[in-house]
Parts: sequence; C-alpha cells; structure tokens
Amino acid sequence: MAPADARVDPAVEETARAIAEMEIRGAAAIADAAAEALATQARQTDAGSPEAFRAALRRAARTLYETRPTAVSLPNALRYVLHGMEGTTVSDLRSSTIAHAEEFRTDLEQAQSRLGEVGANRLRDGDVVLTHCHSTDALACVEAALEEGKEIEAIVKETRPRKQGHITARELREWGVPVSLVVDNAARRSLERADHVLVGADSIAADGSVVNKIGTSGLAVMARERGVPVVVAAQTIKLHPDTMTGHTVEIERRAESEVLSDEERAEIVGESDPDGLTVENPAFDVTPPRHVDAIVTERGQFPPESIVVLMRELFGHSTGEPWRP
Amino acid sequence: MAPADARVDPAVEETARAIAEMEIRGAAAIADAAAEALATQARQTDAGSPEAFRAALRRAARTLYETRPTAVSLPNALRYVLHGMEGTTVSDLRSSTIAHAEEFRTDLEQAQSRLGEVGANRLRDGDVVLTHCHSTDALACVEAALEEGKEIEAIVKETRPRKQGHITARELREWGVPVSLVVDNAARRSLERADHVLVGADSIAADGSVVNKIGTSGLAVMARERGVPVVVAAQTIKLHPDTMTGHTVEIERRAESEVLSDEERAEIVGESDPDGLTVENPAFDVTPPRHVDAIVTERGQFPPESIVVLMRELFGHSTGEPWRP
Amino acid sequence: MAPADARVDPAVEETARAIAEMEIRGAAAIADAAAEALATQARQTDAGSPEAFRAALRRAARTLYETRPTAVSLPNALRYVLHGMEGTTVSDLRSSTIAHAEEFRTDLEQAQSRLGEVGANRLRDGDVVLTHCHSTDALACVEAALEEGKEIEAIVKETRPRKQGHITARELREWGVPVSLVVDNAARRSLERADHVLVGADSIAADGSVVNKIGTSGLAVMARERGVPVVVAAQTIKLHPDTMTGHTVEIERRAESEVLSDEERAEIVGESDPDGLTVENPAFDVTPPRHVDAIVTERGQFPPESIVVLMRELFGHSTGEPWRP
Amino acid sequence: MAPADARVDPAVEETARAIAEMEIRGAAAIADAAAEALATQARQTDAGSPEAFRAALRRAARTLYETRPTAVSLPNALRYVLHGMEGTTVSDLRSSTIAHAEEFRTDLEQAQSRLGEVGANRLRDGDVVLTHCHSTDALACVEAALEEGKEIEAIVKETRPRKQGHITARELREWGVPVSLVVDNAARRSLERADHVLVGADSIAADGSVVNKIGTSGLAVMARERGVPVVVAAQTIKLHPDTMTGHTVEIERRAESEVLSDEERAEIVGESDPDGLTVENPAFDVTPPRHVDAIVTERGQFPPESIVVLMRELFGHSTGEPWRP
Amino acid sequence: MAPADARVDPAVEETARAIAEMEIRGAAAIADAAAEALATQARQTDAGSPEAFRAALRRAARTLYETRPTAVSLPNALRYVLHGMEGTTVSDLRSSTIAHAEEFRTDLEQAQSRLGEVGANRLRDGDVVLTHCHSTDALACVEAALEEGKEIEAIVKETRPRKQGHITARELREWGVPVSLVVDNAARRSLERADHVLVGADSIAADGSVVNKIGTSGLAVMARERGVPVVVAAQTIKLHPDTMTGHTVEIERRAESEVLSDEERAEIVGESDPDGLTVENPAFDVTPPRHVDAIVTERGQFPPESIVVLMRELFGHSTGEPWRP
Amino acid sequence: MAPADARVDPAVEETARAIAEMEIRGAAAIADAAAEALATQARQTDAGSPEAFRAALRRAARTLYETRPTAVSLPNALRYVLHGMEGTTVSDLRSSTIAHAEEFRTDLEQAQSRLGEVGANRLRDGDVVLTHCHSTDALACVEAALEEGKEIEAIVKETRPRKQGHITARELREWGVPVSLVVDNAARRSLERADHVLVGADSIAADGSVVNKIGTSGLAVMARERGVPVVVAAQTIKLHPDTMTGHTVEIERRAESEVLSDEERAEIVGESDPDGLTVENPAFDVTPPRHVDAIVTERGQFPPESIVVLMRELFGHSTGEPWRP
Repeated sequence: MAPADARVDPAVEETARAIAEMEIRGAAAIADAAAEALATQARQTDAGSPEAFRAALRRAARTLYETRPTAVSLPNALRYVLHGMEGTTVSDLRSSTIAHAEEFRTDLEQAQSRLGEVGANRLRDGDVVLTHCHSTDALACVEAALEEGKEIEAIVKETRPRKQGHITARELREWGVPVSLVVDNAARRSLERADHVLVGADSIAADGSVVNKIGTSGLAVMARERGVPVVVAAQTIKLHPDTMTGHTVEIERRAESEVLSDEERAEIVGESDPDGLTVENPAFDVTPPRHVDAIVTERGQFPPESIVVLMRELFGHSTGEPWRP
Repeated sequence: MAPADARVDPAVEETARAIAEMEIRGAAAIADAAAEALATQARQTDAGSPEAFRAALRRAARTLYETRPTAVSLPNALRYVLHGMEGTTVSDLRSSTIAHAEEFRTDLEQAQSRLGEVGANRLRDGDVVLTHCHSTDALACVEAALEEGKEIEAIVKETRPRKQGHITARELREWGVPVSLVVDNAARRSLERADHVLVGADSIAADGSVVNKIGTSGLAVMARERGVPVVVAAQTIKLHPDTMTGHTVEIERRAESEVLSDEERAEIVGESDPDGLTVENPAFDVTPPRHVDAIVTERGQFPPESIVVLMRELFGHSTGEPWRP
Repeated sequence: MAPADARVDPAVEETARAIAEMEIRGAAAIADAAAEALATQARQTDAGSPEAFRAALRRAARTLYETRPTAVSLPNALRYVLHGMEGTTVSDLRSSTIAHAEEFRTDLEQAQSRLGEVGANRLRDGDVVLTHCHSTDALACVEAALEEGKEIEAIVKETRPRKQGHITARELREWGVPVSLVVDNAARRSLERADHVLVGADSIAADGSVVNKIGTSGLAVMARERGVPVVVAAQTIKLHPDTMTGHTVEIERRAESEVLSDEERAEIVGESDPDGLTVENPAFDVTPPRHVDAIVTERGQFPPESIVVLMRELFGHSTGEPWRP
Repeated sequence: MAPADARVDPAVEETARAIAEMEIRGAAAIADAAAEALATQARQTDAGSPEAFRAALRRAARTLYETRPTAVSLPNALRYVLHGMEGTTVSDLRSSTIAHAEEFRTDLEQAQSRLGEVGANRLRDGDVVLTHCHSTDALACVEAALEEGKEIEAIVKETRPRKQGHITARELREWGVPVSLVVDNAARRSLERADHVLVGADSIAADGSVVNKIGTSGLAVMARERGVPVVVAAQTIKLHPDTMTGHTVEIERRAESEVLSDEERAEIVGESDPDGLTVENPAFDVTPPRHVDAIVTERGQFPPESIVVLMRELFGHSTGEPWRP
Repeated sequence: MAPADARVDPAVEETARAIAEMEIRGAAAIADAAAEALATQARQTDAGSPEAFRAALRRAARTLYETRPTAVSLPNALRYVLHGMEGTTVSDLRSSTIAHAEEFRTDLEQAQSRLGEVGANRLRDGDVVLTHCHSTDALACVEAALEEGKEIEAIVKETRPRKQGHITARELREWGVPVSLVVDNAARRSLERADHVLVGADSIAADGSVVNKIGTSGLAVMARERGVPVVVAAQTIKLHPDTMTGHTVEIERRAESEVLSDEERAEIVGESDPDGLTVENPAFDVTPPRHVDAIVTERGQFPPESIVVLMRELFGHSTGEPWRP
Repeated sequence: MAPADARVDPAVEETARAIAEMEIRGAAAIADAAAEALATQARQTDAGSPEAFRAALRRAARTLYETRPTAVSLPNALRYVLHGMEGTTVSDLRSSTIAHAEEFRTDLEQAQSRLGEVGANRLRDGDVVLTHCHSTDALACVEAALEEGKEIEAIVKETRPRKQGHITARELREWGVPVSLVVDNAARRSLERADHVLVGADSIAADGSVVNKIGTSGLAVMARERGVPVVVAAQTIKLHPDTMTGHTVEIERRAESEVLSDEERAEIVGESDPDGLTVENPAFDVTPPRHVDAIVTERGQFPPESIVVLMRELFGHSTGEPWRP
C-alpha cells in the first residue's frame, strides 16, 4: 500500500473518473484537465520528503494515464508537467510543478491561434489550399491568413466515410472562402490547381510520421508527385510521447456501418455467404515524413524529421514512462 | 448533292438515328451496330466505280460518326472497317469491306472472354487484386482465373461518387470471391496486402495514357510508390483513334447532385452566398503510362507505351479521318 | 570498277557536291535533294538487270551518304527511298523507287504543318507552354493552335550560349503570343505556371532518347519533378536510322567563343596559367525517354519508347546500311 | 487417330526424344533442332490438301513443344516457323515453311555476332561496364567493341550462389580486359565508376519485363538510382511468346545445396529444429521495363516497352498456340 | 514617450543610419555592426531596473531592425544577442549581453574559415566540384581543401544573368584549381563527372529550404537524379530567424536590363506590342531540403531537415520578435 | 614537457597499450575501457588548478585516442566524458568527470537491452524482418519482441564475402525464429514478403548517413522502391563525433582472399596477366538518410536526419577535438 503522503488527491480521482467516463473529451480538454489535476495534486500533497512528493505526483499521473492510455494528449500533458518537476526540496518541487502545469495550460489555451499565425505565414495572397477531413488546427491557419487580408481559396475533399469535409466547407463558407467540394477520388486531378495541401493530425510520431484521417497518406504521395507542398498543422498536444521509444500508434478500426448501410450490404451480398463480404474501415493512416514538407505547431514550424527534437524538449529525454516507479 | 450511287442506305440512317437517340447504347453495342451498318451499306451500294463505292462508304461512316462524336467505340469501329476496305474493283471493295466488318463483329463478341484469359494468366493462385469502379473487362480477368481453379481475393474500392464498387463487389460475391470493401481513402493502406491493381478503362490514348473513372490515376501513383503492379483491362474498342493525332480526350463533368444532396448543400451553405460553394465532379482522370504496367486486351497484353502500335495496326496509319473526303 | 549500268548519274554527283560544299543545307533541304537525286538515278539508270538497277541505286545512295555522314536527315531520306525499292523487274524497281522518292518529298513538304496540327491538338485554350531554344517544329504546334482560335501564352528560355530563345520570342510576338522571357536558370521556378514543356529535336534515337539543344535534358528532369508534361515536336526526318543498330549520336563540341569573349577570358585568367581554364561547349544533350511524355510527328504522336516502331516502318528492319553491297 | 497424311515424321519424333532426354540442350541448340525438324516434316509430309499439310505441321510442332514446354526458345522457334507457313497450295505451304525454317536457322547462327555489333555501338572507348552472371550475349557486345579497337574495363559481380561471374571474368581476361571482381553486395558502390550495366536475359516478356539471373532486378534498381544506364543483351530466341497472352514466366527454384553446404547447415541449425531453417534459392528474378534502358538484339536495339512489337512481328499476332487445332 | 533609461544610445542611432543608408552593407558587416551597437547600448544604458534595461535593449534592437527588415543577417544578429541577455540584476544583464555580443562578433570573424574546414573535410583528394554563382562560403571549403594538400577540380556554371561564375572561376584559377567553365544549360551533362555540387546560400529557412541564386533548385533536382550529393555552404548568419514562425522568404525581382539589352528587346519586339514581351528576372529560388545532402556551417554540418535545431539554439525558441514589447 | 600535474596516469597508459595491441577489442569494450581510464585519471590527478586538471584529462584522452583513431567508439566515449567535465574547482571537475564516466559506463551496459525494447516496439506480432550481416543491436530488437510474446519471422541475407548471415541465422534459430536464408542477390525478390528491413550500423555520421556492412545501401535503395521501411539499430557509441565537422568515414578495404581463393584466382587468370584481375573488397558502404526510416538507439528512435541533434547533446557543440590544447 502507498504511504499516506503519496496518496492520490480526491480531486485527481474525480478528474480521472470524468476522463474515463468521457465527460471530459477532446484532445485539448483532456490535456487541460490532466495538467490541472497534477497542479492540484502538487498543491495538496503533504509529502514529507522530495521522494514522497515525486511518488505522489507519479501516482497521480499514473491514475490519470490509465483512464485512457490511447488518448495521445493525456501522456503528452502528464509528461510535460512531470518533466518540469524540478528541485531538491518539497517546496521547490511543488512550485516548479505548479508553474509548469500553469504554463502548459496557458500555452494550450493560446496554442491554436499561435499555430494559426505560423501557418498563415506560409500562405500567400491568392493561394489555393486543398484540405482533407476537418481539422481546427488547419482551419486556424486559413483563418489567420484571412485576418491578415489574404485571399484564400479552398478545394475541400469530402472525406469518406464520415464526410467531415462538409464541416470544413461550412466553416470556410462562413468566413467567405470560395470552396470547391470534390470527392476523394478527384484528389490527384484537383492538385493541378492547388498551391498547398493543408491537413491536421491525429498524432505525430517521433520518426516524423503523421497519423491522420484515412486518406492523408495517399494525398501526400500524390502531392509529392505533382510538386505540391504538404503542410501538417498540429498543436504540440498531438506529439505522441510513446513513439519516442518506438511504440507505433494503434490505428482504430471503426464500424462497418459508417461505410455501408444495411440495405447496401444486403444488395451486395445477395444470395452469397454474408461472411464473404467484410468492410475494412481504419480511421487513420500513416504518412511517412518524406512526403510532408512542414509541421506547423504553436512553437513554430518544423520539418517532420525534426519534430523529435521538439518532443525531447517538451517531454524530456528519458525513455521510460515517468509515472512508472 | 451526293451522286446517287453514294447515297446512304436507309438501314444505315436508321442505325444512326438509334445511336443518336440512345436506343443503342454501351460501347460494344454501338461498335457492333456501326460495323453492321457499314456492311449493309457495302452490300446495298450500287456504286458504278471504285471511287463511288468508297465515297458511299465514307458517307455512311460520316453519318454514323456524327451521331455521337465523343463515343470512343464509334470511330474505332468505323476506322477498323474502312481500314479493311481494299481492292481495285467494286466487287473486291465490297467483299473486303463486308469481311472486315464481320471480322470486327466476331472479334467483338469474343473480345471480353479472350481478354479475360489473357488477364487471368497474370494472376497467380492466392493473389489479392485491388479494384476501382466497375469494369466488366477487369472482372473478366478474375472470372477466367477462377475458372482455371485459382483462388483470388478482392479489395474493392467503393468508388465515390456513384459507388460502382458495390456492383463489382456483388458480382465478385456471386462468384464466391472473398471481398473486402473499403472507402476510396483507404486505398494506400489497402495496397499493403494487394498483389495487383486491376482496373478497366474508359478509353486509351495513343500516348499510352489511360482515361478511366476518377480516382484511377491517384491509385496508380500510390501503387507505384508501394511497388504494386497496375494492370488495365480494356478491349480494343476502348482505343481512341483520334488521339493518334494528338487529340486529347474530353473529360465529362457530371452533375453536382451525384456528390451532394440538396440537404447537404443547404447545411454547408448556411447563411453564406450559395455561389461560393461549387462542386467539381469530373467523371474521369488520366493516368500517364509510366504508372501502368500492362494493358490487357483481347489481342494480348502490351506495355502502355506500345499501345499506339496496336492502334496503328487496327486503324491504319493515316492521320486524317477516313470519312472526310 | 563499277559496271557501266551501275554508274552514278552526273546529276547525283552534282547534288552530292552541293551537299558536301553546304550549298544545300538544313535538314529538310538535304533530305529533299537526296530523295530527288535517287529518283533521278532511277530514271536515268539503263540497268539491264534488277541486280544492276539495285547496284546503281545503292551506289548513288552511297555517294550521297558519304558527303555528310553525320547529317541525320541524309541517311533518313536514303533509307526511306531504298526501303521502297521493290519489284522483280527493272521496270517495277524503277517505278517503285521513283514513286517512293516522290512520296517522301511530298510528305516532307507537308510534314511541318501536319505535325503542327497534331501538336496543336494537345494544347488547350489558355495553356502556357515553356520552350527551349528555337524549333520550327515546336513553333508549328503553337501556330496551329492559334489558328484554331486557342489562346496560348509562352515562357521562353533564352537558351545560352547562342540565345536562340530570342528568335523564338520574336516569332511568337509576331503572332501576338504573350511572351515571358527568362534566363535558363529560372526554368524550375517558371515550371510552376507552365502547362507543357514544348521543344524540338536535333535527332531521335531508336532507344527513345531525344538529342536536342544543350539544356533540354535538365529541363525534362525538372518538368517531371514538377508534374509538367514534356512534348517533343520532331518531323520524321529527325529519326536517326543508325541508332537502330545501337549507334550513339555524336555530340558536337562548339567553339569556346560562343561562351566567353576574349575580354572575359582575360579577366578570368588574370595572371594564372591560361591552360587551366577550359570551356566545355557541347551543342546538345540526351534526354532519356522516361522524361518525355510524347513525340509529335507528322505521322501522329508516339510515346518515345515506341518511336522505334515508326523507324522500322519508314526505314525497314534490316540492320545493315542499305547502300553497302 | 490422326489421318495418315498428318503423321509426325520419324525424324521429328527422334528430335523430340533427343530434346526430351536433354541430348540436345541449350537455348540455341534446341531452337535450331526444332526448326530443322519442322523443315523435315514439311519436306516429308505427303499431305493431299492444304488442311492436311497444316495439320501435319501443327502436329509435329506440338510433339516438339511438349517435350519441354518451359524452354523459352522452343515455342519461339516453332511459332516463328509456323508464322511463316503461307500459301493456298500444298506446294506453296511446303516451300514457304522450309524457307522460313532455313531463314530462322541462318539468322540464329549469326544472331550473336550481329547482336554483339549492335551492343558494341553503345559502348565508347574507355567505358567501364558492370556485369552480372555470365551471358554470352552480353560478352559478345564487349568482344565486338574490343574488335573495333575500343578499350573497355569491366567490373564483374561474382553472382552468388553459383559464381558465374568467375566464368565472365575469365573470358574477359582472355581478351585482355582489365577486370575488377566484386561481391554482389558491392554493386551499389561499384556503380559509382560504371558507365553501363550490361547483362543478358533468360527470357523477355511481352510486358517488357526481363527475366534474368537472380540479382538482376536489384542491380537495375540501384543503377537507376545512380543514373547508370542498363542494357540487356538478348537474342530474339529469348523472347517469350507465351507472355504475349499474359502468361508469366515460371521462376525455377534451385537446390538448397547451391547456397549452403551440409556443414554450414549443421552449424546454423545447432540444436534447433532443422525444419525451422529453409533456404530460398530462386534462379531468376524479374526486372520491370522502367528500370531498363535498352534491349539489344540481333535485329537492333529496342526500349523494353517496345519489345512486344518485335515479338508480334516474329511470331504473329494470334493469341492462341499455333500447334493447337 | 520612452522612459529616460530606455533611450536608444546615439551610437546605436548612428549605426542604424549607416545601415539604412547602405554605408554598412554585406551580410557579415551588417551583422557585426548590429551586435556591436547592442553591446554599446548595454554599456551605456543607465537603466535603474532589469525591466528598464531590457526595454532599452529591445528598443535599440528595434531601431536597428527597422532599417532593413529584409536583410537576413540583421534579425539573426539581434536575436542572437538578445537571446543571450540573461540575469536578474542590471549588472548581470549588462555583462551577459556584452559577452554575448562579443562572442557573436568573434564567431563571425572566424566563421568562414571554420566553415571552410568543415566543408573541406567532405572533399577527397582528386574530387571534382560543380559550382553555381559565386559564394565565398563555398569557395572557403575548396580553399581549405587545397590547404590540406588535396587536388580539386572545378566545373563552374557561368550563372546567367550576371555571370558571377566568372568571379568564381577567376578566384579558383588564382589558387591554381583547373576550371572548366560551362553555360548553365550544360549542368546535367556536366554532372556526369562531378563528385559534389557545392553552392552557397542567400538564406536558409526553418523548414530546411535553401534560398539561393536562381538556378540552384534546378541544379539540385538534376544532381539528385544523377546521384551526385549536394552541399550548401552557409554561415549561421544566413539562417533566417523569421522562418521559424512560417514566414516565407521574399524573392527579389531584379531589373529586366540584366537579362535583355535595349537592342535585344527591340529586335524581339519588332512591330509587335512592346507590352507583350515581359522579362521575369527573379534573383533567387527555393530548394526543398529533400534535394540537399548537407548544410555546412561554422558550427558543423547538418542535414537540412535539422537546421531548425541550430536556429532554435542560436535564437531561442520564442516565436515572437524579441524587440517587440 | 608536460607539467607534473598533467601527467598521464600509468593505469591510463596501460589501457592505451591494451587497446593498441587489441587486447581490448570490440566497440563496447573499447568505449568502456576508455571511460574507465578517464575516471581513473580524474581520481588520480593531483592537479593544483582547474586548468591543470583539464590539461591532465585532455592529455589522457589524447593518449587513448591516438591508439586507434579510426575506432568510432573511442572518440565517442572520450568526448562524452570530457563533455561532462564541468565546474570551477578541481573538486567539482573531478566529481563531475567521474560521475559522467560512470554514467557512460552504466548506460553502455544497459544500452543494448534498452535499444532492443525500443526497436521491438516497432515490430508487430507476425512480422517478417529482413536482415543483412550480423548485428547484435538488430538482433536485440528481435529478441525483445520475442520476449513480449510476438511471433517474428526472419529472412536472412547470407552477406558475402564473410557470410555473417550464418551467425545471425544461428542465433535466430536458437530463439526459435523461423529463418529463411537467401543469397544477397535474392534481396529484392525477398522484399516482397518482408515487413521491415532491420540492420545494424558500423557508424553513423552527422549528415544522417549510415555506414554499415557492404550491401546495406543497395538493400535500402531496393526497400524504398518496394515500399518496405528500413530500420537501423545502433547504440549511441556508433555515432561518429568527427563527422560533425564534415569528416567522412574511411571505408576499410579488406583482403582479396575473403572474396577469392587462390584456386579460384588461378582459374580466372589462366594464361592472362595476373595484374589484370583485381578484387575490390570494401568492408562497408554508405546509406544516405533519405533511404532510412528510423535509427533506433538506447535513447529512443530518431529519423536519420535528426541524429546530429543527439550527437550534439552527447558530445557538445564544439567543433574542435576536445583533447587538443
């Protein structure tokens, strides 16, 4: 059993529960709650020794981590805060941890608009951007460019199976951006008049790979063949700390029903064995760094091959998981 | 006015009308009817001289051609038959023309099954083919392979906007082929376990380009990047004679409603200017020959860069249009 | 000594002299004169046997050939005519040879305008073509497109060292084509807004390589990287028959003075050893077929990998030189 | 039972036996014997009708074909001769068949030296060629170049598992060619100073693929990456007629003992399950045409994408097997 | 109005004036003067508080920055010095700022020779380098190699429009380096015998792109195709800090007269509308990092994808401009 | 002469001797001994001043360095320890140096197993890895994957000339991994069923190049062409500090006898001049970073383009050699 002074604070437990039960959801919200919880733990812990303080924080981090180990922003936030826990006295440890958690939360709040400004700097007046899926980070770049007075046009891929391109199109139309909607199959043809491919990311790995909505990697391959640069807009909460140690990102398989209605299935199957028809519906794919020109974050832009450096800066260099004893 | 002996036969006129009014439709049906009509003209013409006979045939061809000048199989059939019109007497001209028309029609009837045998020879037992859209020529290759006792699996792209992949999937299931259906965006990921990309063609140009359902060219680019060979199955009625003289193939733009329902449009447009949202819906795209490994026809397989040789053999080398005076 | 009936006609000797002394110059003029000379030889020869007739024609061809063995259009014309020398009697041989020579000359006269029509078919209204050096064949494509009412813009590389781009620019301006002149170094940047690279050829080899003005091969490599198609406009007199047997095309080295004036040389050399500064000034380079999309001739367009088929059709399949005994 | 006049001549039966029992072996010897046998059959057949003559010849061809259906030069020779069987009388059929068989045999005799001259024309004085395996066709190119007085150097890959590179090296040394022997792993590094990759072929397919000794395709990929042209030297008896109809070339799997001695195997296996160690020893691999610059034959050089045209010229266009009824 | 203790020192004002009026010019001279001015400001400021000291330094930096905001070495120097301004007392801030400014100036003085040594280490005895334009950084690598006793040959592109290649050639000849001068069009052909492409840089962006004299990017594309490594020699004052936040580098358009004389223009225009002829004369182009093998600086060599790390080390990680309040 | 307090400790001298005479061999053993020697020197030095202490350590480092200046792990260890020598008093310098040396040695001891865990994370259950040569680092990845319960298959290249693939195969068989052994020439064909290429490294350069057993670079080129990712497993003692300043890695040339026995040589040479046959036997080749997907170290995985950052972190940024005065 844990020593009394390494006990997880009830407020942390409550946050963990809320994340686990998906009351708190979305990459940014989860990250923010996790950082806040660690600050709370740091404030509340009555640890008698630096060791005990560290143990308490690690324990709190672990509690939070285990709620949803596949949510990339969760270990990201936890590592960031623990990486900032420094000092040789309980007092120093406490203040540095709290400061780091606050810093994380403040940065997070401003991240998207900062990222937007960085991305906007790559866009020139009159440019045509081709988008895939719906990414608020990618849209923030367009929005910032519009605010700088640049005229931007968009070619929007509908992004089957869930057609998130419609959401992107709607948002761009609200801002007055001329939108040309195309089916995903029209991507290569549409690249003829695109100046940039601009997409978001679900997560980014230490080897520079970009995990994003299924269809991204093919789009990047085609863009390279047509000489169109590919920009990925991603806040640093999308950087996946576990990949620093070689872990690969698990690709979610989603329901067949997103792809095929019951009527469509019945029509295809006809008299044949229903098991002979399967539907593969992976949510994401992996784009290797050689097909990406730049990753735009709130901390500046990076070639994908260098993003590991930013990860090491944010999360530290240790290869283990900081919440493990 | 045309001399009496160069008059277009009423049966030819009737065929022309039926093609124009789309009573006769589909590449093979049109080609067959056109060849039959030329044979009829050859039989009925009471030309008094070789010149008159040729003029009559050219006139008939022209009448047929002008019904639907963009249907690739129409000039294809006409050129083939006229290319076979040889001799120095009316009698010889007549018999050679009729023979050539019959030959064309017989070949046409057997073309798909012959093509299927050729394509099947490229498939090995246990192979996985990845298909795009619905092509009876491509399916003929799978069917022939199955008849030879090979086990074939298929990954079928749904092929937005019209989802002809469902028809392909249904047909394959009828034959007992295990089918994995994927959205078009999953193409690059699916290539990891594909042994061949197998598609049909809408038409094939003299420079080796393959015009096919939108999405084909991107698929071919991705297949090249993944090291998967790309096979195009296309009967010779898909060879586009006009491209021998540099003509490019006009790409049909189809209705927005294939891509977007009225509700979806309304949802996207919201309060914004409706003209700001356009939908690009090209039916086809163009795959350059360097991304295709082989074109499989009923006359054997060819690298795309050599298909022009087959075109010259079938249609002759003259650069003009044979129905022009 | 040659038998009397294999004697070279004085008119042929005169043509040979005129070619040798460069009174007759330019690829088309040489080819035309050579074909005419062979027709004359065929008319004048009083050969008593088919063998003697053939020997006389071969001898005439050889006489002509040896005047300028590196002029590509000379063996081209000779092979074409000799390839058409058919029959089993002197009379048949004579008439077929004359007919073939006339055919060659007629085709030659119309070749450029026919080629222009073929090339024009590849250009769409509003297209931007990027040109290198000065080629009347390439310009014929633009001219034909203008005549069809298409609007064409041009980016013209100046083409050091001799700046033949200026001639191209002047001609295009005469036709009212908007011209943007750039230095050769600006090629890759200019490709961003080009729809086609359009160049001529000095000669074309059986392996599909295009020999053209120095700078062409680099332009083609860059165009491929940017996704811009490369079209080579070349009459069939540019097809190099000797390359069918593996011969490589000798690249002319031109004078240093084209690159460097005496003052410039003196300035560079300064006090140093003058021999330490050399100027390499090759007139041409070789573009491999994989970087070219189409070769446009008066007999239609071909992928470069198929041009050998046209060569075999025009010149026959024999691997020897037809004027050798 | 076959009609008397379609009986296979005893001399043909004897040739078939000798091929089957490998008394006659080697691509050229088999092809020569098969052509001779068909000539004999043509001479001996006392067919009363053209149909009977054709049946007799087909039957003889079939008898020969079935001795070793995987030897590429056998169907090659049979198709060539049958393709030349023309005429409407028994007499004409007989003489044309015999003539074609003789032509084939004469060409075959001269093929290697003719091919050598063609290939030598691609080599310049002072060039360095990099070779793989042992190919008399490839060596014929070097020999012809030496005879023309060119200095040639060679880098010779040893070509595991059977080290045929040693035979190549020995032959080149006999001719006085400086030889640098390297292990196969040193290929990419050696390409730095090579001017050509020069290899032979086991067989060549209609889609332009080159089937050659295992290691060829990797060498070609590396050569492309280093900008070194790849030349394949192959007589036309290496053209594989069956591939015109899509058939793939069966890759022979050779004995494990070529790769691993019993002692080596014992050493590797140690105490482990011996079945856990397998040795893959494919004799050949397949190089796609896009990695080959030219195929050099005795009938001139061709881009690999055009070799199908030569195949159609030699073997005819029919897609069936000419010895089938 | 600024508080008295944040006043810009008159010496700083004088330096700003001299930069603005181009009395001080050249990347190194500007950077040196700017760093010296900040040191002066640090020495002279009688700030009563750390805040006031920082404000004074920021104000001085801003004054300097606004003289020529597009000169890459100016923000580079300012950021470097301000990044080193550390401490919690005025005294510490002063001394750290002065020390950092001195360090910058000392490093700058030695940068080119240090860079030369690093670059020379990549060159082997007997190597041939191909250069573009005139870069003292690139030449420093050759000079250092010569000093180490290596023999180096050079192929020098003349570099239209301004032919700075002549300056490069002259300098190399002074050192006794054998020089082969070529027109820019001969680049691809010349790469056949080059061991390295060696160029300088106008500026380098955070995404690894190299901005350099027009023609560089095409040369790099060709070098990649020929397997020749591309080395960029650039002192760290060429690193462009603004690009860390996505800013693109403005490409200067230079005068038409560099490309075309009045006589040449008149000759081209003839009777046509003079406005129909434009001259595009961009001074620079952008080479993406995937076409560059290494960037050689005085702080060692880097793959272009990692240069952002050096930028962050030199200038700090903040994404704003340090002279903004 | 060195001051008394900068004298090299006898224990260091002894270590130097043992390294020089190859009593201590192997990258890890040398690195460990060198770090230990520096710790000893730090403990024993009775330096009276920080300067003297530093001089003594530098002298010891130099003594060790000069024993085998081409062994990459030696400067690596020396730089690491000297980079950690920090402080302003002799006492601080001593303790920091000793601590850093101990840290290095501890890390070294655990490096391979840590690296193995990182590499194993990239492998999925059921994957097939293709290996080249014998690398304990690469094998550590497989071993760790097996320990995690994953099933792994291996294709093992024999790796001529020394067939270290046999050692790899034996080790894998001991662990029960199914092994398919192939000759090096079968690499491209084997890639068809490989999920990863997994190799070690002899050393890694700052420009991201991987120096490894001859054959690695060709394998990487082929893997890229087939779409198979390439992973290099290398402890950080393989990072080559000298390459940070542009130094290239010297490639060892090994004995001809590894490639050719005397009998084989005699057989090849025959009667020819023995000097005409040379054997090139380079031990290693250089793989550019664009053909490598990830470098796996005990400190996590990196794209090859970022490995320079790890080098700078471990060895410091100074461009000189730390043991030089």
